[in-house]
Amino acid sequence: MSDETAAKVRAALPRGFVDRGAADIAGAEAMMAKIRAVYELYGFEAVETPFVEYTEALGKFLPDLDRPNEGVFSFQDDDEQWLSLRYDLTAPLARYFAEHYERLPKPYRSYRTGWVFRNEKPGPGRFRQFMQFDADTVGAASPAADAEICMMAADCLEALGVKRGDYVIKVNSRKVLDGVMEAIGLGGSENAGRRLIVLRAIDKLDRLGPEGVRALLGVGRKDESGDFTKGAGLGPDAIHIVANLLLRPQVKGYSRNLGDSKRPIADMAAVSPPPGVDGETWLDNFGTLAHWISAIGATAGGASALAELQEIVSICEAAGYGSKRIVIDPSVVRGLEYYTGPVFEAELTFEVTGDDGKPIRFGSVGGGGRYDGLVARFRSEPVPATGFSIGVSRLMAALRAIKSPIVAEAARPGPVIVVVLDRDRMADYQRLTAALRGAGIAAEMYLGAAGLNAQLKYADRRGSLCAVIQGSNERDAAGGPQVVIRDLTLGAELARASKDRADYLELRQKAQFAVAEAELAAAVAQVLARGRD
Amino acid sequence: MSDETAAKVRAALPRGFVDRGAADIAGAEAMMAKIRAVYELYGFEAVETPFVEYTEALGKFLPDLDRPNEGVFSFQDDDEQWLSLRYDLTAPLARYFAEHYERLPKPYRSYRTGWVFRNEKPGPGRFRQFMQFDADTVGAASPAADAEICMMAADCLEALGVKRGDYVIKVNSRKVLDGVMEAIGLGGSENAGRRLIVLRAIDKLDRLGPEGVRALLGVGRKDESGDFTKGAGLGPDAIHIVANLLLRPQVKGYSRNLGDSKRPIADMAAVSPPPGVDGETWLDNFGTLAHWISAIGATAGGASALAELQEIVSICEAAGYGSKRIVIDPSVVRGLEYYTGPVFEAELTFEVTGDDGKPIRFGSVGGGGRYDGLVARFRSEPVPATGFSIGVSRLMAALRAIKSPIVAEAARPGPVIVVVLDRDRMADYQRLTAALRGAGIAAEMYLGAAGLNAQLKYADRRGSLCAVIQGSNERDAAGGPQVVIRDLTLGAELARASKDRADYLELRQKAQFAVAEAELAAAVAQVLARGRD
Repeated sequence: MSDETAAKVRAALPRGFVDRGAADIAGAEAMMAKIRAVYELYGFEAVETPFVEYTEALGKFLPDLDRPNEGVFSFQDDDEQWLSLRYDLTAPLARYFAEHYERLPKPYRSYRTGWVFRNEKPGPGRFRQFMQFDADTVGAASPAADAEICMMAADCLEALGVKRGDYVIKVNSRKVLDGVMEAIGLGGSENAGRRLIVLRAIDKLDRLGPEGVRALLGVGRKDESGDFTKGAGLGPDAIHIVANLLLRPQVKGYSRNLGDSKRPIADMAAVSPPPGVDGETWLDNFGTLAHWISAIGATAGGASALAELQEIVSICEAAGYGSKRIVIDPSVVRGLEYYTGPVFEAELTFEVTGDDGKPIRFGSVGGGGRYDGLVARFRSEPVPATGFSIGVSRLMAALRAIKSPIVAEAARPGPVIVVVLDRDRMADYQRLTAALRGAGIAAEMYLGAAGLNAQLKYADRRGSLCAVIQGSNERDAAGGPQVVIRDLTLGAELARASKDRADYLELRQKAQFAVAEAELAAAVAQVLARGRD
Repeated sequence: MSDETAAKVRAALPRGFVDRGAADIAGAEAMMAKIRAVYELYGFEAVETPFVEYTEALGKFLPDLDRPNEGVFSFQDDDEQWLSLRYDLTAPLARYFAEHYERLPKPYRSYRTGWVFRNEKPGPGRFRQFMQFDADTVGAASPAADAEICMMAADCLEALGVKRGDYVIKVNSRKVLDGVMEAIGLGGSENAGRRLIVLRAIDKLDRLGPEGVRALLGVGRKDESGDFTKGAGLGPDAIHIVANLLLRPQVKGYSRNLGDSKRPIADMAAVSPPPGVDGETWLDNFGTLAHWISAIGATAGGASALAELQEIVSICEAAGYGSKRIVIDPSVVRGLEYYTGPVFEAELTFEVTGDDGKPIRFGSVGGGGRYDGLVARFRSEPVPATGFSIGVSRLMAALRAIKSPIVAEAARPGPVIVVVLDRDRMADYQRLTAALRGAGIAAEMYLGAAGLNAQLKYADRRGSLCAVIQGSNERDAAGGPQVVIRDLTLGAELARASKDRADYLELRQKAQFAVAEAELAAAVAQVLARGRD
């Protein structure tokens, strides 16, 4: 191991995995504290599951199937059973709820934060380990539970400093999508594979635009790298139906009588935007519903889906979360296969200018939906459930872009450095260091082998405001042992200053001065207070 | 998936993995905040590495080799390279430091917390996923760095409420152990395997006692279950040497002139305990060193090991961490193979009485040591390093046992429950709930399908102090809509109270009363304040 001649191991991480520095860790902690506070205000309580589960318990619900073990890191246990790293926090929660069914309150409202793993092809901003922060209500069939999740997502974003108008919570329903599938002849379990291809194509609307999605609905599409992705093979008529219902711009219109959730949806189809309202840009939930009802309102799934969506948006409107914040968007699909009803996506709508001058949109920073079948895999009772998951890293990148003070990289000063001049007196220097710590001042004795200048450079690199120096002159001072306090900020200023400066001598006196050992902590505290001015 | 007739998946975790509830999560967070504060006071800064590393980068340093993949969860990547879940936080730190060598300050002082994984046989209190909280100084060869780690470990325990005298930080050196190995003819790389068996046997002193260890040093030992563990096969003379140097009780004696680190160790051999000092129980670092010097002081490794240990204990003594807190203990081995010099162990020495009336000792709650060869696996420069790792779960169990207020399960009240009586008015109930949240009061609208009594029972199960009720009477009240506030604590008292009680009517009035909707939040806040009295 310490053999100098042995071939060296490469110090590198596998692709898709990254280290986190102090600023990232502190930013994520601050952000998650805010989210936690919102979740708790909504009555959710913390629970956590481990990273490893039986592969069978997690099930196969991932969207990407183009990798040998289908997106999941798996390994075999001693007893030949397959174990997997969790790929999200929802499947483990379903296992948890099923396992502890008897003792848990119902509905069961809980939140959890944690790392999840995807054995996928990594790319820019796409990692194989990333952090999610989820909240779920298990055991509630009411669309009111879905509405609450949407409002809570909006509250989280605002608590984090995202301004109203800079985000939308988009809502759709898998049942609407199922209705459309039925309408184009892709109903039934024999078409499950093709349905998935169609759904994945729609899910890419943001990235590829309507034409790209149309291509994927048809024969397929060649991407920029020249790779060809085979399409769903739909004919022109079917593509037209999908495009008309799911890819078209939001219906023009406006929301009238929004508090009246009992008004039949069909009534609203004829409503035109009032004078002066920009129907082109004002997203209208009830208009979307009205547009859909003519197309799929008569199908079995369609009617109930639309009623659910109507209840969700009505509750949100009544609670003051209007259609600028929570909006029905037909293109929302969500990749995970376990969703059974409403699906949600939190999207940031603002743009920032990147380092290369190009605009950056952060897009989706979280999503979720209803997964009524997930707990039923374990138990015979039907257990409806709905939840939401925030992508912590992407949201943090966005918060940094809008300079949210919550995740700002606070320039925390480094510790006070106690310089070591005489290696025989380590115990003395340690005592000085301990005195500072005893006064609550972060401090360290220099532990390397370098000389004074290198030690001061080290202090600089740590972002320290102050160094403490004791040589034999100080130790043997006439009136008892002393220490020299060096203000590193003023020291740097002094180095740049002209000696002709009127206050040069005063500056030099303030930048470095001697005090009795007993006054060490008080003098250092004064220097640190200066640095915070 | 939702097929009712399909065989159900078993809702269970693989052995050695556990879920964490709200109290555990909050306790661990509170505990880690205290540890973090101590680490930062010592000038350490946060850094984190991912859970997955190249298997080769982690190396094979685990003590338990009795499992097929040697204690580590491993899987093959797409490109055939082997990846592993980290088994500790030290090996990944070595990779991190080597990878970012140029830009990191040296010495590099950092801390990190995180879950680690061992593919070992789980048992009581022995998990396959557990949390560690580490601090490391990389790039410092000085024993002062080791001394500091020991003092910091002591400070952590005291910051967490462990009283002085209830813990010791035990120190030993792998080089002392190497010296003993040499003395019994087990030097050289050809004896590496047998050395490991001997070290593991010594490491079990706490658990098996001296006789059990002697058996493992010889032919072997049958445990309570009847399983036979093969021993190291040492002869009686070698066993005697090991037992005399490493398993004997601490040398009687006392520490004199402790501030004088330059005094030769050998001088101290003749010092006897002063009158009135209980030499039997007072552990004496310099006495131990004196005992060792006669045996291994002449070997190459022995002399430098003893000089290092002397410097460590001298610095600790000078900083006020006497031999009751930081003590040389020859039986400390530490399982991980990468240690090269001083090794440490934080041990809780108090006993508590378990639920079964039997005494419980928590023993080791953390450990560490110097690992000078770990970074050198990646780079040609020598990079000395030392660190310490706290076992979060075990320490938390111990803190609970001594009722440390830091991890006490604070009985946090559940959210206010807004009862749903009329399912057509969900939007109204949601509005009431939003009003409470707007006032900073954790609240939820009941989302299940049950009636009033079941909803109040649910509130009880959540530990709620207050429920809010609105039926048609309240909604249509003459002076405008009202809500009924129910104080669940007083409600329970009322249910138990006799109607003859003098203040019965007053109690009933306080336990449930109506207010105007506009006064909802203020009235609920009053009820919650009562509950905190």
